[in-house]
Amino acid sequence: MTVNRQWVLAKRPHGMVTRDNFAYREAAVPEPGDGEVLLRNLYLSFDPTQRGWMEDRESYLPPVGIGEVMRAGSVAQVVTSRHPDFAEGDLVQTTGGWQDYLVASPGSGVMGLSRLPDGVPPTLALSVLGVTGLTAYWGLLDLGEPQPGQTVLVSGAAGATGSVAGQIARIKGCRVVGIAGGPDKCRWLTDVAGFDAAIDYKADDVDQRIGELCPDRVDVFFDNVGGGILEAALNHINMHARVVLCGGISAYNATAPIPGPANLMNLVVMRARMEGFIVIDYMDRSAQAVADLVAWMEQGLLHHQVDVQEGFDNIPDTLNRLFTGRNIGKQLLKIADPE
Amino acid sequence: MTVNRQWVLAKRPHGMVTRDNFAYREAAVPEPGDGEVLLRNLYLSFDPTQRGWMEDRESYLPPVGIGEVMRAGSVAQVVTSRHPDFAEGDLVQTTGGWQDYLVASPGSGVMGLSRLPDGVPPTLALSVLGVTGLTAYWGLLDLGEPQPGQTVLVSGAAGATGSVAGQIARIKGCRVVGIAGGPDKCRWLTDVAGFDAAIDYKADDVDQRIGELCPDRVDVFFDNVGGGILEAALNHINMHARVVLCGGISAYNATAPIPGPANLMNLVVMRARMEGFIVIDYMDRSAQAVADLVAWMEQGLLHHQVDVQEGFDNIPDTLNRLFTGRNIGKQLLKIADPE
Repeated sequence: MTVNRQWVLAKRPHGMVTRDNFAYREAAVPEPGDGEVLLRNLYLSFDPTQRGWMEDRESYLPPVGIGEVMRAGSVAQVVTSRHPDFAEGDLVQTTGGWQDYLVASPGSGVMGLSRLPDGVPPTLALSVLGVTGLTAYWGLLDLGEPQPGQTVLVSGAAGATGSVAGQIARIKGCRVVGIAGGPDKCRWLTDVAGFDAAIDYKADDVDQRIGELCPDRVDVFFDNVGGGILEAALNHINMHARVVLCGGISAYNATAPIPGPANLMNLVVMRARMEGFIVIDYMDRSAQAVADLVAWMEQGLLHHQVDVQEGFDNIPDTLNRLFTGRNIGKQLLKIADPE
Repeated sequence: MTVNRQWVLAKRPHGMVTRDNFAYREAAVPEPGDGEVLLRNLYLSFDPTQRGWMEDRESYLPPVGIGEVMRAGSVAQVVTSRHPDFAEGDLVQTTGGWQDYLVASPGSGVMGLSRLPDGVPPTLALSVLGVTGLTAYWGLLDLGEPQPGQTVLVSGAAGATGSVAGQIARIKGCRVVGIAGGPDKCRWLTDVAGFDAAIDYKADDVDQRIGELCPDRVDVFFDNVGGGILEAALNHINMHARVVLCGGISAYNATAPIPGPANLMNLVVMRARMEGFIVIDYMDRSAQAVADLVAWMEQGLLHHQVDVQEGFDNIPDTLNRLFTGRNIGKQLLKIADPE
């Protein structure tokens, strides 16, 4: 056994995250106690919400402390087990953080500790069948309540969550329009993921295109972006529309408060609802979601993309790929292969 | 019978409404056809939403056309009846508009045509038992879902709708904090209407005071104002809070779009909901609301204030009292006494 490489939070970010926000550290490999396992991280998950965890403000999870290992979901392998439910070599999902090794138990971290189902590769466990897929599933179905024939608009539509949300809407019989950045992502949405149409927010007039592509207006808007895209979508909501607030990546690196949409009164005119959620509230029902998601994948109805970076040294830079739009689907980083 | 005095919309407003936006006109008194009644307006209702009706934009009702009589709710008296359900001298509620006389039938206008219950004075029919009271009732109870012991915050709390919403919340066992303009309105809220506390937005730091006066955070925010007050309230919402969007008077006279709150992500962090509604969707259930409101008034649990201006010539200026905060409770204007 070797040293435990770690990236810890060195200082809180102002604007875009840089390598200076983190410090590289080498620590001793920890020892598991009774009821615990020693894990080696294989794949790290990168999610826009992690940017918020770096801020010193009240939120749905406590901030990562200065000097603490950066929090992140991961797939890991059991090196040593002192828990009866886990054996050496098992692949597990947990909140592993930006490090090689950690000690965990079923109650530890946001995600707890759960064995990957047989045959599920780590990349799938961290994408469609992971937090992002579950976020899409519960956000769309529980808050969005899409009905067959309704129009569903998705922002961040080529991302890990948006792409799954849009495809579930399509599976449920909705007309689905996605908003994404660049022609490649838009082509993937319509040609592979089966969206009815895509809007390239880097090239198109988003407000005008929503109007053209959603002639019956928007019944469900699944929003990962916020800002001007939320405002444009609100211009086109239908009566009794549901705006599912999943995220607001457009403001996560803002250095000053970014004003919200000027047209919230459209929620009144249209008797519409805007609602936020956090997927951790649904974790006790994840089996139901995973069963549906697996079935849709097996039927060829649900496609996904995974962007796997490599190298421990690249961890800090990989986070920013989410905010520059460079990631193609779910952003992961491989630290090691399973042994 | 005399001429029919009218105020018609002459040009659309830019910013605050002025007398120039209307033209005074004298028309012939209309003749009722079969199934219709001729009405004489007694009291006109002034509501913030009427400002929106003057704009040429899609909304929940068509705009008032240039040259058309300005739309307004009213209590009127039947002059001539050619409908079996109405007799001469009956007091009715309808969408009478800014004029002396009109022809109406049960299906006419937004409000239809309904007889005032025996013993209900016109001022009550147009305030607590009218559109504003029903708005408070359905918005608070149907969307806000207040539970005993929860904290309810109301903006525009001394206004016709906010004051009723807050008192219903108090009746339902909630802690109620109101936001209003000026010490007199705040004193009325706590000393007469039984609010637990009041915030004077003209003198206090609203954000800070909400934090102090709502130590358990805000479970229901009933908003009539929008803008900075909405943003301040969102800073203090509790888990699973309901933000009832009733109105946004702070922006109704804006000459350029006013940005929305920068902290909509608090809806995500708190798994909270923001929802708009229009009371006309609840009109088929108004008997239920009126029964409760009457009972609460008879028990001395529900207080209200009515601000009755007089004089046909004062009609245009009276609308602006809502936007300068000069009105004390429900804004009405008396054109004539019943005969």
